[in-house]
Amino acid sequence: MSPSARPWTGIYPIAPTPFTATGELDLDGQRRVLDCMIDQGVDGICILANYSEQFLLADAERDRLLDLCLQHVAGRVPVIVTCSHFSTRIAATRARRAAAGGAAMLMLMPPYHGTGLRADDEGVVEHFAAVAQAAGIPVMVQDAPLSGVNLPVPLLVRLARELPQVNYFKIETPGTAAKLRALIAAGGDAIAGPFDGEESITLLADLDVGATGTMCSALIPDLIKPVLTRYLAGQRGDAAAQYARILPLINYENRQCGLRATKEAMVEGGVIASAHVRHPLTPLHPDTRAGLLELLRPLDPLVLRWGK
Amino acid sequence: MSPSARPWTGIYPIAPTPFTATGELDLDGQRRVLDCMIDQGVDGICILANYSEQFLLADAERDRLLDLCLQHVAGRVPVIVTCSHFSTRIAATRARRAAAGGAAMLMLMPPYHGTGLRADDEGVVEHFAAVAQAAGIPVMVQDAPLSGVNLPVPLLVRLARELPQVNYFKIETPGTAAKLRALIAAGGDAIAGPFDGEESITLLADLDVGATGTMCSALIPDLIKPVLTRYLAGQRGDAAAQYARILPLINYENRQCGLRATKEAMVEGGVIASAHVRHPLTPLHPDTRAGLLELLRPLDPLVLRWGK
Amino acid sequence: MSPSARPWTGIYPIAPTPFTATGELDLDGQRRVLDCMIDQGVDGICILANYSEQFLLADAERDRLLDLCLQHVAGRVPVIVTCSHFSTRIAATRARRAAAGGAAMLMLMPPYHGTGLRADDEGVVEHFAAVAQAAGIPVMVQDAPLSGVNLPVPLLVRLARELPQVNYFKIETPGTAAKLRALIAAGGDAIAGPFDGEESITLLADLDVGATGTMCSALIPDLIKPVLTRYLAGQRGDAAAQYARILPLINYENRQCGLRATKEAMVEGGVIASAHVRHPLTPLHPDTRAGLLELLRPLDPLVLRWGK
Amino acid sequence: MSPSARPWTGIYPIAPTPFTATGELDLDGQRRVLDCMIDQGVDGICILANYSEQFLLADAERDRLLDLCLQHVAGRVPVIVTCSHFSTRIAATRARRAAAGGAAMLMLMPPYHGTGLRADDEGVVEHFAAVAQAAGIPVMVQDAPLSGVNLPVPLLVRLARELPQVNYFKIETPGTAAKLRALIAAGGDAIAGPFDGEESITLLADLDVGATGTMCSALIPDLIKPVLTRYLAGQRGDAAAQYARILPLINYENRQCGLRATKEAMVEGGVIASAHVRHPLTPLHPDTRAGLLELLRPLDPLVLRWGK
Repeated sequence: MSPSARPWTGIYPIAPTPFTATGELDLDGQRRVLDCMIDQGVDGICILANYSEQFLLADAERDRLLDLCLQHVAGRVPVIVTCSHFSTRIAATRARRAAAGGAAMLMLMPPYHGTGLRADDEGVVEHFAAVAQAAGIPVMVQDAPLSGVNLPVPLLVRLARELPQVNYFKIETPGTAAKLRALIAAGGDAIAGPFDGEESITLLADLDVGATGTMCSALIPDLIKPVLTRYLAGQRGDAAAQYARILPLINYENRQCGLRATKEAMVEGGVIASAHVRHPLTPLHPDTRAGLLELLRPLDPLVLRWGK
Repeated sequence: MSPSARPWTGIYPIAPTPFTATGELDLDGQRRVLDCMIDQGVDGICILANYSEQFLLADAERDRLLDLCLQHVAGRVPVIVTCSHFSTRIAATRARRAAAGGAAMLMLMPPYHGTGLRADDEGVVEHFAAVAQAAGIPVMVQDAPLSGVNLPVPLLVRLARELPQVNYFKIETPGTAAKLRALIAAGGDAIAGPFDGEESITLLADLDVGATGTMCSALIPDLIKPVLTRYLAGQRGDAAAQYARILPLINYENRQCGLRATKEAMVEGGVIASAHVRHPLTPLHPDTRAGLLELLRPLDPLVLRWGK
Repeated sequence: MSPSARPWTGIYPIAPTPFTATGELDLDGQRRVLDCMIDQGVDGICILANYSEQFLLADAERDRLLDLCLQHVAGRVPVIVTCSHFSTRIAATRARRAAAGGAAMLMLMPPYHGTGLRADDEGVVEHFAAVAQAAGIPVMVQDAPLSGVNLPVPLLVRLARELPQVNYFKIETPGTAAKLRALIAAGGDAIAGPFDGEESITLLADLDVGATGTMCSALIPDLIKPVLTRYLAGQRGDAAAQYARILPLINYENRQCGLRATKEAMVEGGVIASAHVRHPLTPLHPDTRAGLLELLRPLDPLVLRWGK
Repeated sequence: MSPSARPWTGIYPIAPTPFTATGELDLDGQRRVLDCMIDQGVDGICILANYSEQFLLADAERDRLLDLCLQHVAGRVPVIVTCSHFSTRIAATRARRAAAGGAAMLMLMPPYHGTGLRADDEGVVEHFAAVAQAAGIPVMVQDAPLSGVNLPVPLLVRLARELPQVNYFKIETPGTAAKLRALIAAGGDAIAGPFDGEESITLLADLDVGATGTMCSALIPDLIKPVLTRYLAGQRGDAAAQYARILPLINYENRQCGLRATKEAMVEGGVIASAHVRHPLTPLHPDTRAGLLELLRPLDPLVLRWGK
């Protein structure tokens, strides 16, 4: 891919990491997750992200999942691999491994650990530079509150300008649309892909300011994709109507369920066998699960039909 | 009011604090805001809250607004007065003044200042006890992320049990519905009013777990109230349909505008003259304002007609 | 004062705010605090700072203390007045009032409230600009963790360059000496006064990198001042020896007591009648008080003799 | 060890993790570090802690270091192994491996990741329970600000009471002495080992409230140990004098250097070849290094002589 010539747009959901009921990796389930997502019509798949419970995986599990996913997707769609770690060296090692295995893009947060360990601006730039250089493929900056790192627009633009590989930006901070607007205005062509995330809860507003892609969950990519395609085709009214139709569900996912929504739906739809999340994450309350399915069923998404 | 005998339910929006274009208090505008809210059919009005920009008011301005609001509402609906301050003494003084002026209830956050000044559990209980005793009226605990204070359910229940006046709880943390469910289960009758807030962005889920009131903004109380009344009348389907209708707007308010949404709408509807917010808050981007009004107009809320 | 021509150096301790045993302002005690501090040989006095419990004062109390302090000091030493508030307008009003009353300098934190309300870099610069313009006297930036605002060196230098009045910098973040070193290197002559704070717990290291002043507590300014004077006179060995002598006490103050140390010592020395701190702050444990006095007595500081 | 019958007391410093100048593990250096520490007279050694840069290690490196350290120490002193991870499963796996290899005790923080991922009280208890059960050896709770988890005294006591293996507590929060005092008062015999940490910067105050051990760095255990032994032998005056002698250095380490101090001193003393810390940590400024050595040399600690 020549990222400046043909930037990616569209929908790049995060693949959940399925576990067995006792918390082991469910590798067969992982393959089915990927197949289901491709059938959902995704433009690409992001793995090992926060919605993949990456913070609950051992390094060896991460490596195994990386290999499995890249081999199983096998180029059917591009795969974006998250390689965030506080250590620049470890993040770069992960990036190199991902690129060697066929990853199309990396996703990376700035370095953080706990409440107190952060880098200054120079350290952030060096971190992204080292990872980009190690991998030789495009890098998406993940600008999310979990890191506790403030990445003001001038710093994001500096990353894009100094490091041409670093040209995708997934913004999911409070005020995402305003930040995307400012980023696009300040960064111009250096911003190949202004994306949002967070279950697409702000998608329409983000499209209005120029977002060209979204990184939602794998719950309803088949229903979110039409919002993008219609919007990008100039049919804003249709896009807004479709978005309004699915917003109660997205809102419920975003506020009540988090990453557990996709897992529960995939169990319901026969994609995976267990919705297990690793401790200290807690399972969804049965009433919340019921509420999720109640919103989901009338929309008839692929996830509920795929494995049946 | 005997709070245990007849608990309040319904919709208690926050009154914005209008300023002139140069940042002075707009007292006439404040009266019009209150009149508009009463015409919106609210069950009560909360003043001097975060959505009233309380953190941008001098003490003398706060006192002036308190007097004006209590006198102007004049018992037409109950008034809830926020009296949060890091100092227990100052919060109690504010509470005493509010009660003496006719406030029906107080709203109070646990003590906080900046990132580091907090109280331990004992200090939190003492803080609420001192304020409750000073005022002699019911107190609503505001459990919001802005305080940076973690108020686990056992502590909330302890407040309710040890301090019978402290029996309303406005939960607006991540996972509000789950917390309300746990609070109601653990606190039983001591929880006279489990409320939510945050522009009612999680209202339906919160009603499902037992919430009996909401503290939204003054943007569309006339459109949110039917969600509650229908739900509490057992018509959940109708409530859900009404909620879905207004959710794109609430989501836009919650994510793109914050407290500026109500001010902009009130300017558009002739309620107040200026949408000024005090520095370092920043005005709404013109495109965001346009997006807000685009979502608002088809719903035909009172706020857009009131002053015309 | 022409700040660039003759920058201030030396020791500018914070005046505690004494309360009666029931928490009222002790105005006579406040006058005695100021007299004691002048007798301690301070180069100036800072009032209404965090160690003055400014976050526990009502606006009217703050005004009263401002007037009292400026009138009572009456030019015997310069007075630095803290005027931090989240609202730029209120901070500017405070600054104007302080300057009109005779303040020599202001101290100001960037805007903050709770955990979430902050300004971006532009907002911070505008905040300082508005306050500086309102007052027309030099401004000291207080760079302290309490604000939760990250002020990187380039932003501090920008403040100094764009706003010539803003030329004193009190750094009390983790790694103060490293930050002072970088600030002085990057800011050059625009940095008229690189100061530290935090009870002078890092004073010697800060002097080594170019600090020219310190804002400690009023506990032992008479014993800290020789560290500065000897150091600035080229007698580093003597300065280090004096610092080592008082370091166990400063460490105990910094880690075990905070602002309560000065109050307890002033009670012991007859300067004030009560060591009361306002709730939710808690009084010093009796054993900790005893430990403080045990370290303090052999040093024979003025504070223990002043009122006897 | 029967922890209730014969609780450990004394000095258990953290072993640094030496790297080569290019950032590889320096395994021979690691062995020399351990030998040097044993020669310093430590009562035990803690490995893989924050001062070991554990947050900059890959899992495979961690395993390799664990094996190497346990084999090389070979029972000469007890080894405490840090096994903190957000995932309960991964922490338990680490704990099991450590115990199987001969660790005498584990150290564990409550689960945390970034700014937002934490467990509630139940989750914290479950986390410690699972790790304790997996390992079957005593567990030390590390109560440090880095985790961003508030562990109030009642929760610590609950851990000690419900999980008899969890009976050591390393407190290094603001106000450590006050917390240790409250912990000992509330927990009684369930608190087998109230320890402090943070370079022993509050050691004397902590001993005064009943601390029985300290987890400092490996910089000057030979000079800190006499503080404990004299204190615990009833010679408080001698202990205080010794502590005052080394406090300027500890203060410099704590405020100016952090974990880099030990590495620089070990390079100077011929223990290891490089003071490299992994990016995004930054090397010590040469002037700060010089300042460290200037304070260190007159004290003639073993670390400066060991490898020469």
